[in-house]
Amino acid sequence: MAAKNAINLHRNITAVHRNRRPSAKINSYQDFTIGSNSHQKPSNKAIKLAESLSNMLNLHIETTIQRNIDRANLNVLSFEEKHNTPARSPKEDISGKWREIHGSRDWYDLLDPLHPLLRREIVKYGEFAQATYDAFDFDAFSEYCGSCRYNRRKLFDKLGLNESGYNVTKYIYAMSHIDLPQWLEKSRLVDTWSKDSNWMGFVAVSDDEESRRIGRRDIVVAWRGTVAPSEWYDNMQRKLEPIGHGDSKVEHGFLSIYTSKSDRTRYNKSSASEQVMREVKRLIDYYQRLGEQVSLTITGHSLGGALGLLNAYEAAKNFPGLPIAVVSFAAPRVGNIAFRDELYQMGVKTLRVTLKQDVVPRMPGIVFNESLQKFDDITGTLEWVYTHVGVELKLDVRSSPYLKKGLNLVGFHLLETYLHLVDGFCSSDSCFRVDARRDVALVNKYCDMLVDELRIPHSWYQLENKGLEKNNCGRWVKPKRDPEDIPSPSAESYTNNMLEMEESYGLGSLFGA
Amino acid sequence: MAAKNAINLHRNITAVHRNRRPSAKINSYQDFTIGSNSHQKPSNKAIKLAESLSNMLNLHIETTIQRNIDRANLNVLSFEEKHNTPARSPKEDISGKWREIHGSRDWYDLLDPLHPLLRREIVKYGEFAQATYDAFDFDAFSEYCGSCRYNRRKLFDKLGLNESGYNVTKYIYAMSHIDLPQWLEKSRLVDTWSKDSNWMGFVAVSDDEESRRIGRRDIVVAWRGTVAPSEWYDNMQRKLEPIGHGDSKVEHGFLSIYTSKSDRTRYNKSSASEQVMREVKRLIDYYQRLGEQVSLTITGHSLGGALGLLNAYEAAKNFPGLPIAVVSFAAPRVGNIAFRDELYQMGVKTLRVTLKQDVVPRMPGIVFNESLQKFDDITGTLEWVYTHVGVELKLDVRSSPYLKKGLNLVGFHLLETYLHLVDGFCSSDSCFRVDARRDVALVNKYCDMLVDELRIPHSWYQLENKGLEKNNCGRWVKPKRDPEDIPSPSAESYTNNMLEMEESYGLGSLFGA
Repeated sequence: MAAKNAINLHRNITAVHRNRRPSAKINSYQDFTIGSNSHQKPSNKAIKLAESLSNMLNLHIETTIQRNIDRANLNVLSFEEKHNTPARSPKEDISGKWREIHGSRDWYDLLDPLHPLLRREIVKYGEFAQATYDAFDFDAFSEYCGSCRYNRRKLFDKLGLNESGYNVTKYIYAMSHIDLPQWLEKSRLVDTWSKDSNWMGFVAVSDDEESRRIGRRDIVVAWRGTVAPSEWYDNMQRKLEPIGHGDSKVEHGFLSIYTSKSDRTRYNKSSASEQVMREVKRLIDYYQRLGEQVSLTITGHSLGGALGLLNAYEAAKNFPGLPIAVVSFAAPRVGNIAFRDELYQMGVKTLRVTLKQDVVPRMPGIVFNESLQKFDDITGTLEWVYTHVGVELKLDVRSSPYLKKGLNLVGFHLLETYLHLVDGFCSSDSCFRVDARRDVALVNKYCDMLVDELRIPHSWYQLENKGLEKNNCGRWVKPKRDPEDIPSPSAESYTNNMLEMEESYGLGSLFGA
Repeated sequence: MAAKNAINLHRNITAVHRNRRPSAKINSYQDFTIGSNSHQKPSNKAIKLAESLSNMLNLHIETTIQRNIDRANLNVLSFEEKHNTPARSPKEDISGKWREIHGSRDWYDLLDPLHPLLRREIVKYGEFAQATYDAFDFDAFSEYCGSCRYNRRKLFDKLGLNESGYNVTKYIYAMSHIDLPQWLEKSRLVDTWSKDSNWMGFVAVSDDEESRRIGRRDIVVAWRGTVAPSEWYDNMQRKLEPIGHGDSKVEHGFLSIYTSKSDRTRYNKSSASEQVMREVKRLIDYYQRLGEQVSLTITGHSLGGALGLLNAYEAAKNFPGLPIAVVSFAAPRVGNIAFRDELYQMGVKTLRVTLKQDVVPRMPGIVFNESLQKFDDITGTLEWVYTHVGVELKLDVRSSPYLKKGLNLVGFHLLETYLHLVDGFCSSDSCFRVDARRDVALVNKYCDMLVDELRIPHSWYQLENKGLEKNNCGRWVKPKRDPEDIPSPSAESYTNNMLEMEESYGLGSLFGA
């Protein structure tokens, strides 16, 4: 591992080198000469060169040289004692109080201290949002880059969510276009599954057992966001754009992702908005016709939280009276005050989970100081333009004894960090919950946030040999994707005819074959 | 994958930040302010900040933005056509000319053009040296960091070398000590398999079938080197130290690794030198008593090549008349002219495989210019102190159409790069061999040297989820190592008694139980 670090570092340094922008420059390796022979002491210059070279090629030595880990310290032992305990809290019946937990009273008196039943539901929805990352194909050398690695029937099984009590009924795709060149994951190959679209999330619905537990049939929409904050950052300073018929305005880039479509594409002949609204309508109609109480819960992280808010706005317009809640994580501001007020008037409830150290929930409107050590709001002048919506559950990275505290812009923003902190949150003035059950190791899936004492490798969530497999001839090749996991536009689009057919088949066909 | 790059980059940049040495400094992120609202054009400063941020967090965008890969270009198609062809050349009988191939005539007329039979043997020995990296536990969070991940009976099976025709008979361990603080891979844990030793290679011997093919019983010693050049670089400017009884001198650091021992250690109560010489003697005695012709071939990469030369020197002193050859890759200079001459006098044959672009074979004695773009010898003043030994096979990274040509200090030094270039080498003035069979994908095991068109991920050689496994409770934990793969001092050390016992058991017991 250490050696790989060194190699990665080297690659990154050369990458920075190749980049000609003046903003990233490495000043080192100035014409030092090694000219000593064995009978002279090495010159200072030679020593400096040796240090520089060692430094550049071998930063893993740095990590090796760091203090040894004495595992008797910290409450690491209690961490390891947990290895054989369940990683989830038991499911409790919330059917009698689901409306409050769904935000009907704006989570009054439930957040600080955080009510255990609410905590469990927040984590449940957060794990749906996390699934949109864990199943996403990020491999720019894959012809399926930007798609989901599994079809919707296998998704929860593959990600260990098979006991979630929900079934995925539909995948959502969104378009990339010239307005937003950077948010989309794009294959570098010419010949790919799609040149225009990314998998952006899914619609799921609670099964009978879960519906009994939570007191209603719950439709979930989970929106994929961005792993690194800046994918959309460059583009979100642009402009506010009207939504609806009043004064409501929202950020142009988010709206554009949500609403764009083109007949020339395979997956976005309809927009993400149309795909979602059609599926949600289908499910509402279906279950309401059976006389069931239905709710809509929309979740998403980062960009996904922003899209969720647009989704909630549209759903509230279309389904008046439907209980709608948004549970967002690390979401930026999306629209103006009129947008917020309209959401309130329509009864949309938003629980906004934020982390004090994460910069994204404070966008747009931040100042970086020159050392990157501190961020400060200057939202005084911007607050009237972009504003947050809903009720905030504010986390603090310092509350967890398992997390490193050093600046880590990516680690502070990742959803797994949020879920860990929600799991350990009791109240704003108390310590990390001692009986928190969620697996701490998950935090390091994509980053290096866990203290070394836990011995969890950083960024460990990855395929064996990055997906290469040895074939019969002993050659390492990229295997073809299982045909059933290759995105197919026809399997993803419900025409009106198909809808009618499915409805006539009843419940069984609702989840597709 | 892309997202992980971004995260790694961020980690490395912060690592550079934390490092206070003036030699590595990043000048960026100077007090830029984002202060524009939606109705103003963003200021230049704001744009610069956005670029910087994007740049830092999101370098994977860079790779995404790069030109699309048009796979019709290049001879990539022929690369993929090879997917279903054998990755190894057929084994041909060399029993009639093994002495020449083993260097008896200093490889006269065999190197340029490179004789196909010799090429195959070079690759064979190189793959033994490569095995010492591929099986090494680099994980600083592992209590077995610095050991081999498998016991010697499983090693070749695990690495796909089961058809090599050789059996591993002994593992070699070498000590770390204060003289050489940086060459050793060291666990960061307090409680580890060994605080003093690293696995440094193995002794193997050809089986009956391979021995018939190659015309003699071949004992191989494979020495592990260093993945990154600088592990020992800091320490190799020290001093020359006498070896033997004449004027021969060798670099102090190499000799120290080769000869150090301490009664206080578990694995180095005897030195690497003693371990190897005892095992080689045991094998020579055994097979010579059976009336067989025996040879010794020593191989190693980088530091491993240097240790191999010391090993050859000692073996030649102890076993006069034994055909001894060294096949080294990317090895630095080791000793003075007297050392070289003594090796020649004793009949040690050395084939030194080097790469024009690799800096290590030119150490000690190089100059870096300030841009890191070029390296030049200034060996005029040093040549009389440190000198190379043997015959050189000089490779050139530009000869392969599969390799990136940009500066890559680590990639140019890695053994897999060498083996790829040997496999494709015809002569110094001809193109890459069209019928080269070795799997090109292997080059990217630990680096990013293959052109993008091949779609082989960089640094792909790694465990699923970095070795974490989900236990019955759904928690991700580091599994315990298989007890049979935990290094045991008693299993590794042959006492005189054991030797005698094994000898009385005959051939079967030679490879241990």
